[in-house]
Amino acid sequence: MRVFDVSVMRAQAREIFDAAVKAVDAEQCVRQFVSLKGDQLRVGDQQYDLGTYRRILVVGTGKASPQMGAALEDVLGERISGGSMNTKYDHALPLKRIDVVECGHPVPDEAGVAGVARMVRLLKEADEKTLVICLISGGGSALAPAPAEGLTLTDKQETTSLLLACGANIVELNAIRKHLSRLKGGGLARAAFPATVVALMLSDVIGDPMDVIASGPTVPDTATFQTCMDILDKYDLVVQVPERVRSRLEAGVAGQIEDTPKPGDVALSKVQNLIVGSNGLAVAAANEKAKALGYHTLVLSTRIEGEAREVACVYAGIAKEIATSRQPIAPPACVIAGGETTVLVRGKGKGGRNQEIPLSGAIQLAGWDNVVLFSGGTDGTDGPTDAAGAVADGQTIARAEALGLSAIAHLKNNDAYHFFKPLDDLIITGATGTNVADVALVMVGNASA
Amino acid sequence: MRVFDVSVMRAQAREIFDAAVKAVDAEQCVRQFVSLKGDQLRVGDQQYDLGTYRRILVVGTGKASPQMGAALEDVLGERISGGSMNTKYDHALPLKRIDVVECGHPVPDEAGVAGVARMVRLLKEADEKTLVICLISGGGSALAPAPAEGLTLTDKQETTSLLLACGANIVELNAIRKHLSRLKGGGLARAAFPATVVALMLSDVIGDPMDVIASGPTVPDTATFQTCMDILDKYDLVVQVPERVRSRLEAGVAGQIEDTPKPGDVALSKVQNLIVGSNGLAVAAANEKAKALGYHTLVLSTRIEGEAREVACVYAGIAKEIATSRQPIAPPACVIAGGETTVLVRGKGKGGRNQEIPLSGAIQLAGWDNVVLFSGGTDGTDGPTDAAGAVADGQTIARAEALGLSAIAHLKNNDAYHFFKPLDDLIITGATGTNVADVALVMVGNASA
Repeated sequence: MRVFDVSVMRAQAREIFDAAVKAVDAEQCVRQFVSLKGDQLRVGDQQYDLGTYRRILVVGTGKASPQMGAALEDVLGERISGGSMNTKYDHALPLKRIDVVECGHPVPDEAGVAGVARMVRLLKEADEKTLVICLISGGGSALAPAPAEGLTLTDKQETTSLLLACGANIVELNAIRKHLSRLKGGGLARAAFPATVVALMLSDVIGDPMDVIASGPTVPDTATFQTCMDILDKYDLVVQVPERVRSRLEAGVAGQIEDTPKPGDVALSKVQNLIVGSNGLAVAAANEKAKALGYHTLVLSTRIEGEAREVACVYAGIAKEIATSRQPIAPPACVIAGGETTVLVRGKGKGGRNQEIPLSGAIQLAGWDNVVLFSGGTDGTDGPTDAAGAVADGQTIARAEALGLSAIAHLKNNDAYHFFKPLDDLIITGATGTNVADVALVMVGNASA
Repeated sequence: MRVFDVSVMRAQAREIFDAAVKAVDAEQCVRQFVSLKGDQLRVGDQQYDLGTYRRILVVGTGKASPQMGAALEDVLGERISGGSMNTKYDHALPLKRIDVVECGHPVPDEAGVAGVARMVRLLKEADEKTLVICLISGGGSALAPAPAEGLTLTDKQETTSLLLACGANIVELNAIRKHLSRLKGGGLARAAFPATVVALMLSDVIGDPMDVIASGPTVPDTATFQTCMDILDKYDLVVQVPERVRSRLEAGVAGQIEDTPKPGDVALSKVQNLIVGSNGLAVAAANEKAKALGYHTLVLSTRIEGEAREVACVYAGIAKEIATSRQPIAPPACVIAGGETTVLVRGKGKGGRNQEIPLSGAIQLAGWDNVVLFSGGTDGTDGPTDAAGAVADGQTIARAEALGLSAIAHLKNNDAYHFFKPLDDLIITGATGTNVADVALVMVGNASA
């Protein structure tokens, strides 16, 4: 029998995570779904005869979109007529036929607005004989700020702040954002009409809802101007929002402005939307790798949400159960959980959700043999740190105490980074150029104590 | 194919929960492990020849101990020479040969101290020809306050408060409590020596650690007086604790007072400790029942801890995954999770952890078809309410909104009870007379939407 002890499992956790990240590499994902044979461009299960198009334009927005663009240039080369995309500062790649505009994230800036204007100008040239390929990835919404006609970036930001302060939920927030934007909520597809549109999406949103990823620039919107007014009403914000925002929404309700495209809208009739990378793909790859390494595996979910330190308690509860009763699976066991947890910041330390999970888990698992808890962000940067996450086991607390580190104090101060750094238990991958949220691994070995 | 829709699943969730509770009925648990054939008393895998004992004394502490006593009287009848046990106010049963003393819980009172004194007097009569049967259940620690010689109840309570205020953990707290008590940490077994002792435990503690259940009155203690002084030192409490507490611990360190019995201590050589009921038994029964009803099942853990509303996010994440990808199991699915979550009270409402789980889960699952989330406390009383818990599904939020109820507002105010009550979605079982913590069910059906 192969021995799976803590040191073996810690190393293999990293291997499994690396396999997950590799499976959602942005270039890789595009190449897997897009291929060219003569004039026939295959995208997922659709085929496009390039002989019928006069030009191919590429637009896009997101942190991983330049990588996606590089893959697309490899496939299509000089067939690409031109294009422009927005990405985050320091995230550009030198592309041959697509301009890359760097702009602000997570706070949108005027560079972003200018980049969007450039895309819109390009799309104005799009006609029936144009194929528009849209490359969408995480951060794509903030990176493509496109205030609707007559609005400023500040109008939108003020409105968002007011809604957040009232406790509006994400569905409500998105409904209003889409109605104040020219690209979000199907706006990009409408701008490209009557061109054919292919949107490739690398999903960083739980459950891969196409209308939420980058605010769905090529996807129908179900909310209306009336929905938006009802939301403002509900929170008593009709008078408080900027004058220009109120005017726009009122004009929309009065039918003086076209609403966002709804399902069945002709502007969306020539759009193919395709998820090319997702947490599900990463988790499936982790599952395959863990099996190949000899583990019994369980894919718990790709939709784990909740406060990181509390989610860790559940992971620890599962690890202890496997260790003591061989339920729900027997050791050597690897439970794989994808999703995106949250951290309510109360302290002043440094860290991120993928570091707080193993920190909290280490406290729960202190003294347990043969258990490992790993959590990593597929983008390689957890919170404002240079780590993707961290790894913990039953001896982490003892090792920390020997160094004078208190796990409870670090957790209280949201300072997981400075807990794991001296232990050398941070996971450092560097920026991976992709982002499909997080992958956590709960591992239980079979070594005798 | 049988149809498992929300209404079927809600009803079956209750059936499954009832099966779980029934499996850990206090009388049932004792009867399952204790039987008499002629003079031969079998307790678990041990056998006692009653012909060799002159008398049988019964002592005990805990909320379910009267039920356990009733079962024991059924088995042993007039062979019981006498006995006394402590239980919570309103929890006594009319027993024939065992006195039942009602006392304060969760705050210990003088009635509890008097009840313990009575047990100690009884145990003084115990000799080599005495069989002492000790019936231990949840709440047993607070219900058997036994300040060590020279200490008052207030001394102990003050010390505990000081430790809690410093952030001492449960292991540290228990070490000190046991050293200030005459029953905890093996003290009861020592008081009964040289009698033979059989302790039957209904475990309300995650993982069933015998030294923690009711503070382990018949179980060796690993901490020493020195451990206790080190803990006071660590938190700078040596000077702050009551004078009598400091004196006792100092005398202990100086070897002037006997330490709690350690593993191998002769006072524990004639003790059999046996868990007769546990969360694991309840969860196993739920699993069997769910299987019998036609569900694919998964026992997630019997050790789930964490903040209730966040644990619910994980449960919702699992439900959504099953519904969309048939992982980790295919519908009709029932995931069973045991343990005990916590609620950090910030609001002024009424509720408990088993009501906050479905309330938070309802928010997460709003609009989802074919999902049910159930959580119940096996004692039938969740928090300070007359409900065992509650049940939610994907339509709960819509139904609540129709009644003008805001789930988010109720959750913020820790007011789950007044959210579920008008919906008629509370689970009302009445006090069950047992307690092995909680059972949650995550169910996904197969009805087409």
